[in-house]
Amino acid sequence: MKAAVLHGIRDQRLEILPDPVPGVGEALVRVRAVGVCGSDVHYFVHGRIGDQVVCGPHVLGHEAAGEVVATHPSVTHLAPGTRVAIEPGVPCGRCAHCATGRYNICEQVMFLGTPPVPGAYRELMVYPADRLFPLPDTMSFGEGAMVETMVVGLHAQDLSGMRLGDTVAILGCGPVGMVTLKAALAAGASRVIITDRIPERLDRAAAYPRTTTVDITREDAAARVRTLTGGSGPDVVFEAAGAVETVRQAVELVRVGGTVVLIGIPPGDDVIFNSHAARRKELTFRCVRRFRHAYPRCIELVRSGVLRLDDLVSHRYPLERVNEAFEQVEHYRHGVMKALVEF
Amino acid sequence: MKAAVLHGIRDQRLEILPDPVPGVGEALVRVRAVGVCGSDVHYFVHGRIGDQVVCGPHVLGHEAAGEVVATHPSVTHLAPGTRVAIEPGVPCGRCAHCATGRYNICEQVMFLGTPPVPGAYRELMVYPADRLFPLPDTMSFGEGAMVETMVVGLHAQDLSGMRLGDTVAILGCGPVGMVTLKAALAAGASRVIITDRIPERLDRAAAYPRTTTVDITREDAAARVRTLTGGSGPDVVFEAAGAVETVRQAVELVRVGGTVVLIGIPPGDDVIFNSHAARRKELTFRCVRRFRHAYPRCIELVRSGVLRLDDLVSHRYPLERVNEAFEQVEHYRHGVMKALVEF
Amino acid sequence: MKAAVLHGIRDQRLEILPDPVPGVGEALVRVRAVGVCGSDVHYFVHGRIGDQVVCGPHVLGHEAAGEVVATHPSVTHLAPGTRVAIEPGVPCGRCAHCATGRYNICEQVMFLGTPPVPGAYRELMVYPADRLFPLPDTMSFGEGAMVETMVVGLHAQDLSGMRLGDTVAILGCGPVGMVTLKAALAAGASRVIITDRIPERLDRAAAYPRTTTVDITREDAAARVRTLTGGSGPDVVFEAAGAVETVRQAVELVRVGGTVVLIGIPPGDDVIFNSHAARRKELTFRCVRRFRHAYPRCIELVRSGVLRLDDLVSHRYPLERVNEAFEQVEHYRHGVMKALVEF
Amino acid sequence: MKAAVLHGIRDQRLEILPDPVPGVGEALVRVRAVGVCGSDVHYFVHGRIGDQVVCGPHVLGHEAAGEVVATHPSVTHLAPGTRVAIEPGVPCGRCAHCATGRYNICEQVMFLGTPPVPGAYRELMVYPADRLFPLPDTMSFGEGAMVETMVVGLHAQDLSGMRLGDTVAILGCGPVGMVTLKAALAAGASRVIITDRIPERLDRAAAYPRTTTVDITREDAAARVRTLTGGSGPDVVFEAAGAVETVRQAVELVRVGGTVVLIGIPPGDDVIFNSHAARRKELTFRCVRRFRHAYPRCIELVRSGVLRLDDLVSHRYPLERVNEAFEQVEHYRHGVMKALVEF
Repeated sequence: MKAAVLHGIRDQRLEILPDPVPGVGEALVRVRAVGVCGSDVHYFVHGRIGDQVVCGPHVLGHEAAGEVVATHPSVTHLAPGTRVAIEPGVPCGRCAHCATGRYNICEQVMFLGTPPVPGAYRELMVYPADRLFPLPDTMSFGEGAMVETMVVGLHAQDLSGMRLGDTVAILGCGPVGMVTLKAALAAGASRVIITDRIPERLDRAAAYPRTTTVDITREDAAARVRTLTGGSGPDVVFEAAGAVETVRQAVELVRVGGTVVLIGIPPGDDVIFNSHAARRKELTFRCVRRFRHAYPRCIELVRSGVLRLDDLVSHRYPLERVNEAFEQVEHYRHGVMKALVEF
Repeated sequence: MKAAVLHGIRDQRLEILPDPVPGVGEALVRVRAVGVCGSDVHYFVHGRIGDQVVCGPHVLGHEAAGEVVATHPSVTHLAPGTRVAIEPGVPCGRCAHCATGRYNICEQVMFLGTPPVPGAYRELMVYPADRLFPLPDTMSFGEGAMVETMVVGLHAQDLSGMRLGDTVAILGCGPVGMVTLKAALAAGASRVIITDRIPERLDRAAAYPRTTTVDITREDAAARVRTLTGGSGPDVVFEAAGAVETVRQAVELVRVGGTVVLIGIPPGDDVIFNSHAARRKELTFRCVRRFRHAYPRCIELVRSGVLRLDDLVSHRYPLERVNEAFEQVEHYRHGVMKALVEF
Repeated sequence: MKAAVLHGIRDQRLEILPDPVPGVGEALVRVRAVGVCGSDVHYFVHGRIGDQVVCGPHVLGHEAAGEVVATHPSVTHLAPGTRVAIEPGVPCGRCAHCATGRYNICEQVMFLGTPPVPGAYRELMVYPADRLFPLPDTMSFGEGAMVETMVVGLHAQDLSGMRLGDTVAILGCGPVGMVTLKAALAAGASRVIITDRIPERLDRAAAYPRTTTVDITREDAAARVRTLTGGSGPDVVFEAAGAVETVRQAVELVRVGGTVVLIGIPPGDDVIFNSHAARRKELTFRCVRRFRHAYPRCIELVRSGVLRLDDLVSHRYPLERVNEAFEQVEHYRHGVMKALVEF
Repeated sequence: MKAAVLHGIRDQRLEILPDPVPGVGEALVRVRAVGVCGSDVHYFVHGRIGDQVVCGPHVLGHEAAGEVVATHPSVTHLAPGTRVAIEPGVPCGRCAHCATGRYNICEQVMFLGTPPVPGAYRELMVYPADRLFPLPDTMSFGEGAMVETMVVGLHAQDLSGMRLGDTVAILGCGPVGMVTLKAALAAGASRVIITDRIPERLDRAAAYPRTTTVDITREDAAARVRTLTGGSGPDVVFEAAGAVETVRQAVELVRVGGTVVLIGIPPGDDVIFNSHAARRKELTFRCVRRFRHAYPRCIELVRSGVLRLDDLVSHRYPLERVNEAFEQVEHYRHGVMKALVEF
């Protein structure tokens, strides 16, 4: 089978690897679509994310969907031919976090594409069958791959405590901001204010109902949000830009008594906020770590028409052009929102 | 001013009463629309609801909207001419429940139209200005009156703990069931199953997205709900029929680990459920008492297009025909959902 | 090994069974103490609990502690000689409830001593090593067996939402009522009112701090509770008597806006409550199904001196006299609280 | 009446002011004890806290208890002679926060002793009768004054989500740390680790049950906490030192999936934490703003023996020596925990 193998910084090559064989509880999946995530690009450009370092040949990719080709005899609930979304984390199943259902914070999780676990930019992969979620006929493989992005928004929404009719601000209008927007609207936010500095991204968001966009290169976001919320600030602010400055701003913008949800991944280690503002407002902060128990729910929300995912995909590439896809995402070229590698 | 005065069972007459004058903190409101509630009809037919008895001439009505005509000089935030929805309960403001924000369970609440507090079937009323909520130009007085019904659905939704993407069953498809349906859909339920025995009501509900109706006179509701939820049962069951049997059924239908929300008002005192089922499923029950802090949120949800209320109104009557409106609601005639008395 | 085998109603005999051998992930445990539970006695007297029927020879018992004798080579964290409390339920580990950490409502749970799963009235048993919890040297086997009772109280406390300083009523003063009392006091209830009809049980409870007992055969419990709580009622009422009447009473007693926790197992199927009271008070009901994630926490609470368990044990019997222990519990003889079978 | 009047930095003088007269809803209280708070001292030394500036003569003090001398005729529930604790904040009662019961974040609150609202270092004060809470005979005025400190610990405990049996770390062992310790123990923490740099304070804390102290000048707090919690970290970390470094440390210490409660008031504006640690652990932060609905509960907890407050008072001064009391607190002299000014 063909796979995109990363050998060093910006050195990712298509190679032929041996076909894998499913073990107990596993299925063999023909990968059909993989979304290019910012973290894939970060490994491609820097060879590492924090203390997670690519050592030796490595296959990236964790936003994937495909088709079950075969299963180990121990797997009975999944027939060959089933089209599936692939939940990328395989938790240990035994620690206190797994036992209490918070498997997303399992410290022994094997996360698809995070070194040294090989990822999804390959034609075939074996995977635990209970992390494969059947797609309805109405969902394409591309939408199946987008589930991985969308569930981040669902999980952030779950943690936020947002109520039907609340007002919301979302700082950042990239893929994570967009799925947060989708989740907030689906859960009945009466007004969403979303900020960014890239006009194409703001234009995309502006097409959503009940949504006001703020271009932070042209407007004073704080003043604008205050005006739009009658002076009080949004009930919930989602930080989805992954910048140091937006964490600080989230505390500044949110209403007294509100909630700040931290989803983005800032480039450095430290973030800073005004402690007096946070205390006087008696804020709650919720930090978001990936997602849990959200794949079936997300697929059901797409099937039933509450959410759509296809509009997140702005560009499509064959596996042969995976590096081109990475570079487009790296430089936000051509208004890219989400680039998809299709097989 | 004209008012509909109840003198005894089924004896409600139009009379001329003296115009009221606003006191400190009060506004004079010209009533423009009042919804006929089942409880109005219950007083009309039985002269009482439980230990709340109509003694002497009484004006009913608590689902109301109108126009501010004048205000006491102490009221500064509300100008004459403002179109408003009228929140019907005036809590004491001093008890432990008021202090902790749960004013809906204030035991000293003065509730509009509940004896001996005179209600809204009259041309003019004085009312505390801080319980009057301005309507946007896009909302009619009829929609303003419907807010009182809708907030019951919002409050039930708040208490339910329903998450985006959950499945829901609603037992009963009258006005309370319909606003519960609206709230569940607005909050992102992926599937709603709603039951009733009146075909016209089920037809109305069937027009909503993601909604499956079950006619309990023709189908085994339990079996149908089980099938529709893949054998497991809905995450949340809202009892909105106010019957003894549907309380029992809610416990039977809801999934293991789920929540039952009791909104309906059964005719007798006692309700019954299977304690073994409730224990084995480790259920949570939430009882709903009216609503709190929901008027501005509801108006904002209508303004922003998340909710619509006009489709709840099936019939309209002038004040002169108020008794006819009551009798229609009493007998569910002509597919009545909500009858409105307009001034 | 010796075991107490139930062959029919009231026909439990000591027999010699073959020694069991641990499988993968299992340990061989020498049972040292087993508490006699009301449900054991119910099987002994009636041969069934609801639709769970004893068919053929059966070993009862699920409140157990013992000593690890040997382990399967796959078990590495538990050495022979370790003294352990035995958590009686073995959930499936794969269903939605297990996955979300609510393993206590797993519908495929294998519960120790519940037919057809053999229980703990035997000298040796094999058991999954990850359901065995090491006891500190300061805890006896008897206390280890009592953990199973205590965790019911901890779980009820977790579900109750009780806050530090709240007032509490507990209906029923048997073992379940007593562990609920211990948990409520440990969590900082400022006042507990506990009711029963057995003087010896009330005397036991009266020795606890901040605790007032009410003998329902001599006093009007409702009036007394009202007086003791300044007219408003307790914040939380725990139903721990397992009677139809106490469920009704819990709704009557609890304060407006309070919570009713249903722990007891009523003899029949149905329970009844006043729906108007529940609605006007906007009550929350929490039903309790066994316990989850509570064994290590309970042991830690005993080790650290927050809880004591030894005072629950009123009588001790050798295995040879197990039937005598059962009959004492059946008839509440000699002021029995908890009878222990020791090996 | 005599009052301690602050005229400028370190210029606080005893003066004679006219006796106040109670208005509608108010009582005249003879102040009997006032606790010296760090914020009093901050105003005394710096003339301001952030943007709250002392302009002109000002009376400090907000931790107070006294005796009702007289009441306005409108006050019926409080007789002269009643001994009371004085809740220091008078919220507006009309804003959204007051309406929803979170009066502690009311932006119009009048807080006793915060400029320009005159405080409690005076012999007589008038105060809204509904913010005065009767003390049982068993509580001294000094303990009544200490309620204001203790409720900070209760409120932090309420927000923390701590469960019976959890492990806790408290960073800082001053008065706020001590009341947090008291609350955590009362709510059933199985283990508390508390850190500071002042030996006398650590000695005080070490006398509490289940409590381990860590002197951060001698030990690596992080390593010690990790060891004491079996490598995983405490379930909840309370930051009660008000230092920039301890906020960062709280994030480092707390277990994966845990909660950080921010109570302390850092000297500067900004605080910093490691965003990757917070995200990987999926932490929740709760910021604490004073307290709400806690006075009667606190008094009940003291009355019933769950909490004691007298041991917080290390020194007592007459009003004439108030400046000496302030200077002792400023320099942590003579092992001061809480200095009390008595009248």
